[in-house]
Amino acid sequence: MPETEAELDVAFLPSELRKTEVAVVVDVLRATSTVTQALAAGYGSVHCAPSIEAARALSGPGRMLAGERQGLPVPGFDLGNSPAALGRYEARRGELVLATTNGTPAIVAAAERAEVVLLGCLLNLEALLAAIPPGSQVTVVCSGTDGRFALEDAYVAGRIVARLRGAVSDAARVAACVAGAYAGAVQPLRDSADGRMLRSTGQEADIAWCARESVLDLVPQVTANGTGVPVVTTAEAGPDHPGKTNRENPIRMV
Amino acid sequence: MPETEAELDVAFLPSELRKTEVAVVVDVLRATSTVTQALAAGYGSVHCAPSIEAARALSGPGRMLAGERQGLPVPGFDLGNSPAALGRYEARRGELVLATTNGTPAIVAAAERAEVVLLGCLLNLEALLAAIPPGSQVTVVCSGTDGRFALEDAYVAGRIVARLRGAVSDAARVAACVAGAYAGAVQPLRDSADGRMLRSTGQEADIAWCARESVLDLVPQVTANGTGVPVVTTAEAGPDHPGKTNRENPIRMV
Repeated sequence: MPETEAELDVAFLPSELRKTEVAVVVDVLRATSTVTQALAAGYGSVHCAPSIEAARALSGPGRMLAGERQGLPVPGFDLGNSPAALGRYEARRGELVLATTNGTPAIVAAAERAEVVLLGCLLNLEALLAAIPPGSQVTVVCSGTDGRFALEDAYVAGRIVARLRGAVSDAARVAACVAGAYAGAVQPLRDSADGRMLRSTGQEADIAWCARESVLDLVPQVTANGTGVPVVTTAEAGPDHPGKTNRENPIRMV
Repeated sequence: MPETEAELDVAFLPSELRKTEVAVVVDVLRATSTVTQALAAGYGSVHCAPSIEAARALSGPGRMLAGERQGLPVPGFDLGNSPAALGRYEARRGELVLATTNGTPAIVAAAERAEVVLLGCLLNLEALLAAIPPGSQVTVVCSGTDGRFALEDAYVAGRIVARLRGAVSDAARVAACVAGAYAGAVQPLRDSADGRMLRSTGQEADIAWCARESVLDLVPQVTANGTGVPVVTTAEAGPDHPGKTNRENPIRMV
């Protein structure tokens, strides 16, 4: 056991992220849920574009364009940013190019500052926890909403850090507090500003979809970032990452 | 009653602050506690300098220099940043020039973006709540610690927003959650990174001092900002700010 515990931190906005060994990017409504669902649906990889324009520039044979602006599908793109819609179809193929307002820029930021970048949401919560190397310095990166703190990401960050072992930062402590304040995931997702936007635009099916826990046994990981557009594929599970040893809860709030 | 409720927000870091009617700056460990204590001790005003150098440039007759770097007194300054030390003496006079790592830069940032800037801490909690104009758009600005989220400021922000009426942002909701998770103020102040620093440097008397609630009946307010160094004096209480009507708690977390 190391003499000094690795730090366990949460960046409530991508702008707060400092250098870290492992970054877990969370945009539960909806980008990281969408990526997880897309890989489960059969896409071989997801290109996470920092902007609509960057996504368009990557269009080509075997690639589907997906994304949103202000929560709504982008004109001319093949798909929106709805995990529920993606989940209704099986046997997707090829590559997805995704551009969203908060989530894909957060993945871009994390890929610049972390050695390992994993994508987390509720859909893959247990698989994610198992994939985080025990003893590593972990920062959960919340995507936020238009540069503002997002309740639903803080909730998921808290669900993650409450299960990891490490020297808990002030932000990680507060995230765990948020997670502990709710009996389940639906309410923080519904109550958040993003949740209200989805409800007011007829997209509330995505809230129920994204609130389901550990139904997908895969972890999206950034495996290439040569062009400033991180490419995410399914992380390989292996004997080096048993995960079990960092699943205890060292955080007591009061 | 207005048809649309004014927004009640929390900026967990000064960099998150947007334009707002009323900013309440919080650096409970220790700058806003120090300013409140300084005005109670008899200083007529406190100049809140963005840096040690800016404070030095303001030195002169009738002015005391105070501040800290890395939590410790600044060589050549008259005073450190200890509310407990300030509170031990009566009948101070003249002006204080204060430069701290997080708190005074947060006050500078707030003075640039808000119409009204008040300073809050636990020492003046009830007086502060009474001074916030009912129905105004309020943002509590947490000073943070070296650009990072600070537990103790989030706790105090939560204590404030839980008593105000308004349309609660995601961040305000979470701050209220943090406040509700603790039975009292001492523990979040002690547990925070700032609290640990104070304990490890023999300054823990300031934790107990700053955890006392509503013992000072005054509210520091920025009343001049001509030179980029906000000048804080005691806000005048008046019949226009009865305060009572926004003291209810509209926030239910779960």
